[in-house]
Amino acid sequence: MQRGPADADWMAVAIALSRRGRPVSAPNPNVGCLIVKEGKVVARGWTQPGGRPHAEAMALGVAGDAARGATAYVSLEPCAHASPRGPACSDSLIAAGIARVVIAAQDPDPRTDGNGIARLQAAGIEVVFNMLPAEARAVMAPWWTRHTEGRPFVTLKLATSLDGCIARADGSSRWITGDRARAHGHLERASHQAILVGRGTLAADAPRLDVRLSGLEDRSPKKLLLTTGEAPEGWTAIASPQAIDDVDSVLVEGGAGAASAFLAADRVDRLLLYRAPILIGRGKPALADIGLADLADAHGRWRLSDSRMLGSDRLDVYERAREG
Amino acid sequence: MQRGPADADWMAVAIALSRRGRPVSAPNPNVGCLIVKEGKVVARGWTQPGGRPHAEAMALGVAGDAARGATAYVSLEPCAHASPRGPACSDSLIAAGIARVVIAAQDPDPRTDGNGIARLQAAGIEVVFNMLPAEARAVMAPWWTRHTEGRPFVTLKLATSLDGCIARADGSSRWITGDRARAHGHLERASHQAILVGRGTLAADAPRLDVRLSGLEDRSPKKLLLTTGEAPEGWTAIASPQAIDDVDSVLVEGGAGAASAFLAADRVDRLLLYRAPILIGRGKPALADIGLADLADAHGRWRLSDSRMLGSDRLDVYERAREG
Ligand SMILES: NC(=O)c1ccc[n+]([C@@H]2O[C@H](COP(=O)([O-])OP(=O)(O)OC[C@H]3O[C@@H](n4cnc5c(N)ncnc54)[C@H](OP(=O)(O)O)[C@@H]3O)[C@@H](O)[C@H]2O)c1
Ligand SMILES: NC(=O)c1ccc[n+]([C@@H]2O[C@H](COP(=O)([O-])OP(=O)(O)OC[C@H]3O[C@@H](n4cnc5c(N)ncnc54)[C@H](OP(=O)(O)O)[C@@H]3O)[C@@H](O)[C@H]2O)c1
Repeated sequence: MQRGPADADWMAVAIALSRRGRPVSAPNPNVGCLIVKEGKVVARGWTQPGGRPHAEAMALGVAGDAARGATAYVSLEPCAHASPRGPACSDSLIAAGIARVVIAAQDPDPRTDGNGIARLQAAGIEVVFNMLPAEARAVMAPWWTRHTEGRPFVTLKLATSLDGCIARADGSSRWITGDRARAHGHLERASHQAILVGRGTLAADAPRLDVRLSGLEDRSPKKLLLTTGEAPEGWTAIASPQAIDDVDSVLVEGGAGAASAFLAADRVDRLLLYRAPILIGRGKPALADIGLADLADAHGRWRLSDSRMLGSDRLDVYERAREG
Repeated sequence: MQRGPADADWMAVAIALSRRGRPVSAPNPNVGCLIVKEGKVVARGWTQPGGRPHAEAMALGVAGDAARGATAYVSLEPCAHASPRGPACSDSLIAAGIARVVIAAQDPDPRTDGNGIARLQAAGIEVVFNMLPAEARAVMAPWWTRHTEGRPFVTLKLATSLDGCIARADGSSRWITGDRARAHGHLERASHQAILVGRGTLAADAPRLDVRLSGLEDRSPKKLLLTTGEAPEGWTAIASPQAIDDVDSVLVEGGAGAASAFLAADRVDRLLLYRAPILIGRGKPALADIGLADLADAHGRWRLSDSRMLGSDRLDVYERAREG
C-alpha cells in the first residue's frame, strides 16, 4: 500500500502557497492555507493583496461544506482578533467545522501569539504545532523581520564583473550582466515593497527602478533614496540604514556607498550577486569601507542559499548567518 | 546483444591516460596509448617523466606478443623520427604487428606532421584519423600551445572575496580562502612547469611557491619573477609576459600587477577563480588596468569550463575563447 502524504508534505504545499502573497499581502503577513479531507485537497488559500481576505478565509470560502471534519494546514497561527475588516480566522475555522489544524509558526503579533491556538483547542479542535516553522518563517522573512525586530528585511543586489567591479572607472556600467540576469533583477524588484539607491547612483544613472516585466508593471515598488539631504519628487529620503520603518522589504540596488553603509550597519539579510564572465580591471569596486577590522571577522557571516546560471552570468544568493 | 565500446570510447580512455604525463613528460608531449584486441584492453601507456619512454613504447612493452593484430589508440600521431633516446614509434608499432591505429590529433612537430601516418599506411596498417582531436589537444594544451604558437599556456589564479578583493587594504590576505581551496591550488602548482609572481608579491609575501601535498613535494615547479629588474637566487627574472619561452605551462599567482600585465597582453588562456563567501570592502582589487577600451569588448572572451565548491569556497574555471 502506498503511504499518503504526511503532515509535513501538506505543510510544504501550504508554505509554497504563502509565497504568492509576497509582497502584495502587506501590511499583513503572507500566509498559505491548505484544507485536506480524506487525503484530498479540498481548498487552497493565500493572503490576498492588501492583506484581506486572509489565507484561511479564502480557503474556507472555497471549501464550503467540505471543510466539515477536514484538516487545515496553515503557515502561521490563525489570528485570534476580529477586526472591522473581518472575523478572527480561529473563529472562522471553528465555525466551519474544521476537525484538525496543523500550524507552522506561532504568530508574534501580541494580539494572537498563542491565543489562536488556545481558542482552537478550547473548541475541541486537535492542534499540531511547529510543523516546518523555519521554512514558513523564511518565506515570510520580510514581515517576520519587521514584526520581531522592528526593521525591514534587506536584500543587497550587486552586479559585478569576475574581478568585482560594478562599473568601469569612468562610471559606465551598461551592460555588465546580460538580459536574463537583468530580467531576474526586475522580478526581484517586483517582490519587494521598496527599492533603495544612494544619492550618487541617482545623480549618475537617474534609474527608473520600475518593474519592466509584462503583467507586473503595477508592482513597481516605493523608491527610497539614501541621503543626508533632501529627496526629489517621487522619492522618499532615508537618512541612514537604520531609518527605514514603514516597509517590510527593501532591495538595495547600489551604489558602492549605499551598499557599504548597509553592510557596515549589519543591515543586510540577503545578498544577490549577479556575476558576468568578463574582466574589467581598475574599475569601480563593488564596495567601499564596510568597517571590517580583521579578515577572520569576515568569515562565517554568509551562507550560500541558491546558485544558478542566468545565460552566461551566474547568480549566487547568500543569506546572512545571524547565529549558530 | 550488447554493443562493445566504439573507437571514440577507447580514444577517450587513451586521452584520459595522457593526463598522467602532465607536466612531467616535458619537453615531450603528454600522450596516452591504449592497445585493444578482440574488445579487451591488453596494454596502457603514457609518456613517462622526462619524455621517454613514449606512450606507445610503454604500451607495446606491456603488450608483448598480444600486440599482434591489435588496435592501438594514440592521442597524438606516432612519431616518425628515430632519436638517440629511442626508435620512432611508428616503426615500433609496425614491428610489433599492430593491425590498426586510431589517432586523435596530428603532430605539429615538422619531423612527424603527417609522416607518422604515412609510414603506418605504407606498412599496410589501417589508420583512422581525427578521433576526438579537440579533446586530445585540450589535455596537452601546454605542449600544444608552445609547439604551435611558440608561447607557454598560461593559467591565472585569483583568490578573492565576493566583492573581488585579493587582500585587505593593509595587504593582509591570510586567509581569504579555506583549506580545501588552498590544497586545490597546490595541486594546480604540481601540474605546472613554472609558477610566476610579480616583484610586489615577492616583496610583500616572500611566497615559497612549493607544492605542499604529500607525495608531490618533488613536483615543485620553476619559479619565475615578473620584474624589469633582477631576480634573487632561486628565481628566474621575466622581463615581460611575452618573454617566457622555455616552459610549456605557467601558473600566474599574482599580484594584481602581474595578473593585469598578462591580461593586457592577452597572454592568459585559463582563469582559476577561487571565491570565498566573505565581503572585505575597500580592499586590494584583484586587477589593475588591463587596457579595456569599452565594456562591450569585455564580453565573449571567457567561457566557464568547470565550477565546483571547495568547502564553502567556489572555484570557477574559465577558458579564453580565442575564436568562434
Ligand atoms: N553595476 C551595479 O550593480 C551598479 C548599481 C548601482 C550603481 N552603480 C554605480 O555606482 C556608482 C555610484 O556609487 P557611489 O558609491 O558613488 O554612490 P551611492 O552609493 O549611490 O550614493 C552615495 C551617497 O549615499 C548617501 N549615503 C551613503 N551612506 C550613507 C549613510 N550611512 N547615511 C546617509 N546617507 C548615506 C550619501 O548621500 P549624500 O551625500 O546626499 O548624503 C552618499 O553621497 C555609479 O557610477 C553607478 O553607476 C553600479
Ligand atoms: N589573494 C591573492 O590571490 C593574492 C595573490 C598574490 C598576491 N596578492 C597580494 O597582491 C599584492 C601585490 O600585488 P602588486 O600588484 O603590488 O604586485 P605584483 O603584481 O606582485 O608585482 C608588480 C611588479 O611586477 C612587475 N611587472 C608588472 N608588470 C610588468 C610588465 N609588464 N613587465 C615587467 N614587469 C612587470 C613590476 O616589477 P618591477 O617594479 O620590479 O619592474 C611590478 O612592480 C600583495 O599585497 C600580495 O599579498 C594576493
